[in-house]
Amino acid sequence: MIFVPLLCVSAMAQNSDVTYSFTEASELNIIGKIHDNTPNPYHRVDTARYKGWNKIENIQVRCPAGLAVLFKTNSSTISVQTEYGWKSEFVNMTAISYKGYDLYIKRDGEWLYAASGVARPKKEDKNLVLISNLEEGYKECMLYLPIYCEVRSVKIGVEQGSDIQSLDSPFRHRIGIYGSSFTQGICASRAGMSYPMQLMRSTGLQFLTLGCGGNGKMQPHFAEILCDADVDAFVFDVFSNPTSDIIEERLFPFIEKIRSAHPDVPLIFQQTIYRERRSFDQKYMEKEKTKQELAARLMKEACKKYNNVYFIQTNATDALHSTSVDGSHPNDYGYTLWAESIEKPLLKILKKHGIK
Amino acid sequence: MIFVPLLCVSAMAQNSDVTYSFTEASELNIIGKIHDNTPNPYHRVDTARYKGWNKIENIQVRCPAGLAVLFKTNSSTISVQTEYGWKSEFVNMTAISYKGYDLYIKRDGEWLYAASGVARPKKEDKNLVLISNLEEGYKECMLYLPIYCEVRSVKIGVEQGSDIQSLDSPFRHRIGIYGSSFTQGICASRAGMSYPMQLMRSTGLQFLTLGCGGNGKMQPHFAEILCDADVDAFVFDVFSNPTSDIIEERLFPFIEKIRSAHPDVPLIFQQTIYRERRSFDQKYMEKEKTKQELAARLMKEACKKYNNVYFIQTNATDALHSTSVDGSHPNDYGYTLWAESIEKPLLKILKKHGIK
Repeated sequence: MIFVPLLCVSAMAQNSDVTYSFTEASELNIIGKIHDNTPNPYHRVDTARYKGWNKIENIQVRCPAGLAVLFKTNSSTISVQTEYGWKSEFVNMTAISYKGYDLYIKRDGEWLYAASGVARPKKEDKNLVLISNLEEGYKECMLYLPIYCEVRSVKIGVEQGSDIQSLDSPFRHRIGIYGSSFTQGICASRAGMSYPMQLMRSTGLQFLTLGCGGNGKMQPHFAEILCDADVDAFVFDVFSNPTSDIIEERLFPFIEKIRSAHPDVPLIFQQTIYRERRSFDQKYMEKEKTKQELAARLMKEACKKYNNVYFIQTNATDALHSTSVDGSHPNDYGYTLWAESIEKPLLKILKKHGIK
Repeated sequence: MIFVPLLCVSAMAQNSDVTYSFTEASELNIIGKIHDNTPNPYHRVDTARYKGWNKIENIQVRCPAGLAVLFKTNSSTISVQTEYGWKSEFVNMTAISYKGYDLYIKRDGEWLYAASGVARPKKEDKNLVLISNLEEGYKECMLYLPIYCEVRSVKIGVEQGSDIQSLDSPFRHRIGIYGSSFTQGICASRAGMSYPMQLMRSTGLQFLTLGCGGNGKMQPHFAEILCDADVDAFVFDVFSNPTSDIIEERLFPFIEKIRSAHPDVPLIFQQTIYRERRSFDQKYMEKEKTKQELAARLMKEACKKYNNVYFIQTNATDALHSTSVDGSHPNDYGYTLWAESIEKPLLKILKKHGIK
């Protein structure tokens, strides 16, 4: 393998003149967690508390997709040093996305993209300098954790002698969002581009993601996790992964189980998206169409049968159907369209329930 | 490493019931090549013809970025089998993009995304089924080749007994487009999403790309390649990679050299884009700003000094500055904005020269 300096973006930012001091991210403010007290602070769920996992579910809910660290610092440079647990490689994602870091800094009241990167594979336990030459004074920072690997330690590096402090979350409420790889953010080019993270920045509401690639199927153990979550509302993307048979079998019991633990919180179901492979694969088209029709029919019934149950439409495709990475998963543009398409209906429902 | 079936998208499409027959892509119609007669038909340039290469330039111009295979077939399934030459891994790109395939099929006169994928790393010489269950009859297909690896052989597989034929190109004219990693398509999630490929589909004009990551610096050997190219116009992205000093030193000689071989063809220079890392890295901001100002000043002079020289603005960022993968390279959305931003000025100039 030939070393290509240009593309090792993280390495470009290495600055050997600076001495860093490190703070474990869990000593700062980690937001976006559906369950607060996990033994590993970068796990979304304590998997030992629940039974029924298959191997990949168990791995995925330990990945920190949708988690971010909030801090403020007057350092002129910001770095990250990671100790990974489980990790893998994915053909439809960038390494920046599945095991890298994505930094936003607040400017004029808005979160603005600042830097993203990942340490080079053979030096992944080394210090990754995300950005240097920051202006003087305190900066409010939000660092998204990786979408698809397990993290044992995340140390945030600032210039020795500068200050780093936990930052209070400006995000309001706690909205659980459970679903498929789409909700986990698979194929977003970096962690902050998943549709829940985009929504979080655009609405100021806190979304607590439990996306689980291929496995957002309303399984009983996931329903238990949701029952145990302290939330003001739920958003679901549960028609993407299961077959029509599973949807028919599980939807109503799933609603009833969540309802038993959360008698009043709104349950907002999203229709699954048009996957671009449908355009030419006729069998796939038929299967997806049938499933979407079933979801629509059952949700019509559910909205009548249960209180505070809602069904909203999603759109992750433009008129040209050109926003897919792999025929199933949207690119960043698709996730932007998705977030934009549900923002208004979502806010309307949440407002009705005093969540604003 | 644990096997994650969901994300091995290409593997999902494997269909063991079908027997495939293969046609070498070079026996069909390969479009997008700036030089036609290269010993390896999937190289953009015969690097042995020119002197002065550094190692990575030499590698990159052999990568088939911007090349596509045109064919029609009545097969119900389409696959690809590759023999790679040089290859590497990139942290800011998907494997689908740097070594995978991206298939479009014509519908109602428009090229529509159909499928994309890459063989799994340990089985990359195996048959990669891109799509199955196609409707009956002939389909017009355009298969984009990988952005960032060398290809020795690309065999297109169709169902045994079905027909595959070369398809005449519907793309008009020959417009050379030389530049940086941006022009090569680095960070596009698949090969068809680079800005030249988007422009090609939206305008019907043929772009012949010579993007070369980190090395679109108006080097004399690249100028020679451009002199030897048979084109109707040139578009340049030559202010992204070089320093201000290099721009100052090379711009006018570069124009004069191209002019000596192509006395009349329009030379259309693009301003380089706003790179998102500028937002917070003050040194980087200063450097990029100075360079853009220099380019604007020199181009103002060049447009007066030389005939048929033009300077157009680019935009690969939206109002929120959220379209970057790594602080330098746009995501698909950014490349879409880029293509949209130059389409109108480009068409206006080309039309003036009878290219439409």
